[in-house]
Amino acid sequence: MVEDMTTPLLSDSEAPADALPVCLTSPTVAILGSGDFSRSLALRLVASGVRVVVGSRCVNRIPSGLFPDAVELRNQEGAVSQAVCLVFMALFPEHYCSLLGLQSALAGKVLVDVSNGAEMNIHGPSNAERLAELFPDSPVVKGFNTVSTWELQTGAHDGSRQVMICSNSTEGKKKVVQLARQMGFHPVDMGGLSAAREIEVAPLRLFPSWSGPVVVTFLLFLFFYGYGFLRGILLPFLAQGGHNAFYRLALDLVNESLPAVALVTLALVYFPGLFAAWLQLWRGTKYQRFPSWLDNWLQRRKQLGLLSFLCAALHGVYSLCLPLRRITLHRLVNTAYRQVKAGTEEPWDELGVWRSDLYLSCGVLGLGVLSLLAITSLPTVGNTLNWREFTFVQSGLGYIALTLSIMHTLFFGWDFTFHIEAYPFYMPPSYLLAVVVPCIVLVCRCFLFLPCIFTRLTRIRRGWESKRNCPVLQHHHVEANGIP
Amino acid sequence: MVEDMTTPLLSDSEAPADALPVCLTSPTVAILGSGDFSRSLALRLVASGVRVVVGSRCVNRIPSGLFPDAVELRNQEGAVSQAVCLVFMALFPEHYCSLLGLQSALAGKVLVDVSNGAEMNIHGPSNAERLAELFPDSPVVKGFNTVSTWELQTGAHDGSRQVMICSNSTEGKKKVVQLARQMGFHPVDMGGLSAAREIEVAPLRLFPSWSGPVVVTFLLFLFFYGYGFLRGILLPFLAQGGHNAFYRLALDLVNESLPAVALVTLALVYFPGLFAAWLQLWRGTKYQRFPSWLDNWLQRRKQLGLLSFLCAALHGVYSLCLPLRRITLHRLVNTAYRQVKAGTEEPWDELGVWRSDLYLSCGVLGLGVLSLLAITSLPTVGNTLNWREFTFVQSGLGYIALTLSIMHTLFFGWDFTFHIEAYPFYMPPSYLLAVVVPCIVLVCRCFLFLPCIFTRLTRIRRGWESKRNCPVLQHHHVEANGIP
Amino acid sequence: MVEDMTTPLLSDSEAPADALPVCLTSPTVAILGSGDFSRSLALRLVASGVRVVVGSRCVNRIPSGLFPDAVELRNQEGAVSQAVCLVFMALFPEHYCSLLGLQSALAGKVLVDVSNGAEMNIHGPSNAERLAELFPDSPVVKGFNTVSTWELQTGAHDGSRQVMICSNSTEGKKKVVQLARQMGFHPVDMGGLSAAREIEVAPLRLFPSWSGPVVVTFLLFLFFYGYGFLRGILLPFLAQGGHNAFYRLALDLVNESLPAVALVTLALVYFPGLFAAWLQLWRGTKYQRFPSWLDNWLQRRKQLGLLSFLCAALHGVYSLCLPLRRITLHRLVNTAYRQVKAGTEEPWDELGVWRSDLYLSCGVLGLGVLSLLAITSLPTVGNTLNWREFTFVQSGLGYIALTLSIMHTLFFGWDFTFHIEAYPFYMPPSYLLAVVVPCIVLVCRCFLFLPCIFTRLTRIRRGWESKRNCPVLQHHHVEANGIP
Repeated sequence: MVEDMTTPLLSDSEAPADALPVCLTSPTVAILGSGDFSRSLALRLVASGVRVVVGSRCVNRIPSGLFPDAVELRNQEGAVSQAVCLVFMALFPEHYCSLLGLQSALAGKVLVDVSNGAEMNIHGPSNAERLAELFPDSPVVKGFNTVSTWELQTGAHDGSRQVMICSNSTEGKKKVVQLARQMGFHPVDMGGLSAAREIEVAPLRLFPSWSGPVVVTFLLFLFFYGYGFLRGILLPFLAQGGHNAFYRLALDLVNESLPAVALVTLALVYFPGLFAAWLQLWRGTKYQRFPSWLDNWLQRRKQLGLLSFLCAALHGVYSLCLPLRRITLHRLVNTAYRQVKAGTEEPWDELGVWRSDLYLSCGVLGLGVLSLLAITSLPTVGNTLNWREFTFVQSGLGYIALTLSIMHTLFFGWDFTFHIEAYPFYMPPSYLLAVVVPCIVLVCRCFLFLPCIFTRLTRIRRGWESKRNCPVLQHHHVEANGIP
Repeated sequence: MVEDMTTPLLSDSEAPADALPVCLTSPTVAILGSGDFSRSLALRLVASGVRVVVGSRCVNRIPSGLFPDAVELRNQEGAVSQAVCLVFMALFPEHYCSLLGLQSALAGKVLVDVSNGAEMNIHGPSNAERLAELFPDSPVVKGFNTVSTWELQTGAHDGSRQVMICSNSTEGKKKVVQLARQMGFHPVDMGGLSAAREIEVAPLRLFPSWSGPVVVTFLLFLFFYGYGFLRGILLPFLAQGGHNAFYRLALDLVNESLPAVALVTLALVYFPGLFAAWLQLWRGTKYQRFPSWLDNWLQRRKQLGLLSFLCAALHGVYSLCLPLRRITLHRLVNTAYRQVKAGTEEPWDELGVWRSDLYLSCGVLGLGVLSLLAITSLPTVGNTLNWREFTFVQSGLGYIALTLSIMHTLFFGWDFTFHIEAYPFYMPPSYLLAVVVPCIVLVCRCFLFLPCIFTRLTRIRRGWESKRNCPVLQHHHVEANGIP
Repeated sequence: MVEDMTTPLLSDSEAPADALPVCLTSPTVAILGSGDFSRSLALRLVASGVRVVVGSRCVNRIPSGLFPDAVELRNQEGAVSQAVCLVFMALFPEHYCSLLGLQSALAGKVLVDVSNGAEMNIHGPSNAERLAELFPDSPVVKGFNTVSTWELQTGAHDGSRQVMICSNSTEGKKKVVQLARQMGFHPVDMGGLSAAREIEVAPLRLFPSWSGPVVVTFLLFLFFYGYGFLRGILLPFLAQGGHNAFYRLALDLVNESLPAVALVTLALVYFPGLFAAWLQLWRGTKYQRFPSWLDNWLQRRKQLGLLSFLCAALHGVYSLCLPLRRITLHRLVNTAYRQVKAGTEEPWDELGVWRSDLYLSCGVLGLGVLSLLAITSLPTVGNTLNWREFTFVQSGLGYIALTLSIMHTLFFGWDFTFHIEAYPFYMPPSYLLAVVVPCIVLVCRCFLFLPCIFTRLTRIRRGWESKRNCPVLQHHHVEANGIP
């Protein structure tokens, strides 16, 4: 607000003569259209100390109280004539041509196009470019479409929302940037009006950074579910002629696949970092760019980690549900029945007790550590961490979670792995398949702790390069103590 | 900070002559009072590069180290005389009159009233207005009271906190706005000093947006708890003369009521949106405002959804606790005992196994989807979503959660609903009552997907209106392809 | 951005003649070094509308596409010569001396040192001070090292990140502050270059505010675990010659210690507040500072509370895992077996059923309330609360959670506490030890509600002081209605 009070004085005296008419302090801004966006925009503008006039086709039908009292309601012509220099076009773009009659009234005034694109893959000019064609005498600025009506209304609570802006008119852009600041937004200059297409489809994108990790996780689930179905249900059914275990489809098999997916996905979080480290070691420099698939993978680690946590948490809840199942009751009662028939108490199975306690403990602790990781991935929590804390949490705690998960799996597997019954139809149990990649990751990580490798990697990451990479630097001081 | 360095030059040369004395760059600011707020304010001001002098009644009793070294401690007169133009009144308002002796020293200096109101429903002038009466020669600005001492101290980590400001003096307000910015706050201009009342009671409000939803949820809980008590405990007790099921009060009945409340509340989240859609269809326009009860309801959906999630989560935890209960052990042992007496193993109950697995799966997945919804309702997570993602999560995932919850209930109910034993005293089980509203919501939502209705609604939402709504626009282009 | 467009005009005409060369609007900024930080810095600068030239030792080895197109890549000499006034030193500090040949080219240009310290406890000058020694003709500004590369790249989504800056050159600092703002950061002036040491080690600190609470929690856990081991395992083993209960180490004993730790830690959250209140009552004033240990303790309440929640949540999950244990199955089957041998159904144990339901309910509700507290301790959620809401949640809900936890413990203990068998080796059960401090806290809190104490405390907190504290104020109006 400070700038807005002082800048006009400045502009008056020093702005170049060919600039658009000066229109600040609290210039009246017009909004054409009276929908939700118009209403929220008006609310926010008024709250930011701007005079607002709303232009509507049927002004007498706007219910009283819809707009705040400070807002003046006029017909479209009246609103445009009142606007000093800024007119927001809060209409659907298909109605732009209905304003052609106002062409001369709008001339010289900055038109702000706040519309979204209709579809992702559309050809032809963007809405803002079409608007610029319709009103060639008005500078057109694209912006505010990425802001929702909800953010306009509540934005005061968290004023750091980004607003992407583009325009071919420097003066127009300048005015909108200033207004956006006054409204508490962070304007980001995206360049000329040709960037409008990108800004218009931004609100239509659906979790672009999640699609890859979700697909990977889903395919892993399909694989483990299908494998378990084959090994545990279909093949026994075909082989033993009617041994019906199809009741396992709904919960057992899901709860068998989820931990396998969680474990592999968690390993996939740490795999690219190791790969990058080995690549740097092999290349002897950090100044060569990673291949783009590795770059992409590195950037998707957070999403993979959260999906791993989701699967692990679901596995935890499913497992806790096991005692609630009808079949558990059935088995318990029949175990007791058979025990009575046999006429002896069940013997004490010390190893079995240790096994179950250990895999439960490792599972609970592993999930607990994963929860901490998930919490620090929340933007505000992560933002309060410094570099060392972030490394400690994401790398240190992450590997602890991975180790605990592997131990959970190994304690669960116990020595059954060495019995031939664990391999019906020569198919190993899924937990054995799931534990392979995580173990490789863990071993590779341990190798990086070997002193010779660790030292070399640290030096590479601090800018040292092996000779073959930077021949012009043979004389360079960092080579003085470099391993040849 | 940039403005604060450059603006004084500007102000010197160009500010109107009748303005208050210029006092920027790093003008000394006085704080009267030496309590917690004073200390935190001083800390923040010093951190923002402002020279601070604190005035106290008993300056020699302030422990050394309480204020940072950069702060000068004086008696009240000394502090006021040092202040260039801004004096913060960090005293309780009942002590304002003790400063009357400083009236002339304070004349012309901007007094910032940072006090909170004492109670919600108080009559008479606000603290700031009383201060203005006491010191008629000083411009009074209300502000900073909504900021806690904690935020003053830690604000640097999250500098986007809103500060509501009001004053009758434009110059005074301008100075405080500028200082608030320098301190990293977002000043919001609330108008003249008459708005001080509202600003003063703002920190006294207790979750105003939650009261309605909490009351609704609580009443629903009372209803289902009472209904369950009648149907399952009291009436059987009276009818069968002493059949004692009162032990069910503590956990069973709560765990029976919670899911019913969660289900109905979740349906109430989606009900007003459907109602609004049908209203728009019926009216043929979106330009008529909704009745205010509907508006309020629409604005409380988030709170209702979170309460639904809370009930559902509690239901989940309670259910997982069931195997830990003494009564579960009792029943298990006695079931086994009776099985032995009968002399047969319990027969395999394939349908029962499927039923329990299905309702557990649906419950777990439904709660999982609700958890995702709850997470995206966190401000920072929600802020990173664009419009389409927000719709996908809140509407798409929300209806998936509703469907899963309904399926959870129906699988739980199974075919028991068709047995006469499920209706003791002609009272249906509570889950049957709870499932009615959600089913209606789901069916109404499905009707909206019918092509004729969907198209019409989409067109209405993009601004099309049926003829009877906008007679002046008979010629309008959007009518060209409008359904009459 | 507004400032950056208008300020140069101002500076041109009005800046003092002895200032550094004017270099604004979009002056070219040089970055020496081409590592990750350099790349992210360049990305952010370009996005903020700044022209960037990157200087590298081996410019031809930088892969195309690593830097955005708008960035010019040169050798180090070329980059420095293009820079108008700002040069970022994005090299490791051990390479600074390799730039000595550029001393004259860098003269008069502001050098921004973005390096982190190598270790926490290092002596000698900071990196920035060493840089200033090497280049005596260039003003050196320390800053941006606390910002991670990740924040530089994604900062646009949350532009309110703090940047600590220090320098001995006011002009240099001013330029960097302005640039930091333009990039969307909140610059914080930390003073002269001697503050660089502190800024450099800031990213190396590992959760400084957590160390105390974590140590306390860990020691409590060790104590309760050791006590439980002695009482339940080691002493019985020694006394009964081979009674082996070591299988309890893995899960039972952990799950017995965790709730005790959670309960004591939760009490420790509310203890210092009570202590402070009693201290104020005893002193008769709030204007004496608390001893520093109490101050520290008060500031660690949030961490203690979160650790208490963590222990309680782990206890909850462990307890829910109990039915999954092998030993539970073993016990169930053998109980049923013995029941059958005895030839009677297990008798109905109404009290036992109530006991288990009550302690489960209290536990679930207590953990639920603690979860709400944990959620409100998230920065964004807590920031939306006003003072009264915050008090309600942290104090009101906190004491409810404490009460529920104590009730959970007492219902769990039931009347076993009065049996001699609960005291083997004269050692009480750990839950009895754990409940002592919480009960004291609760009783002390209740005493504060006594009207005479409550009134006096409220008056003290609003600034009233007993006579002996402020003798100069005998005449003061607040004494008029003061208790002598």
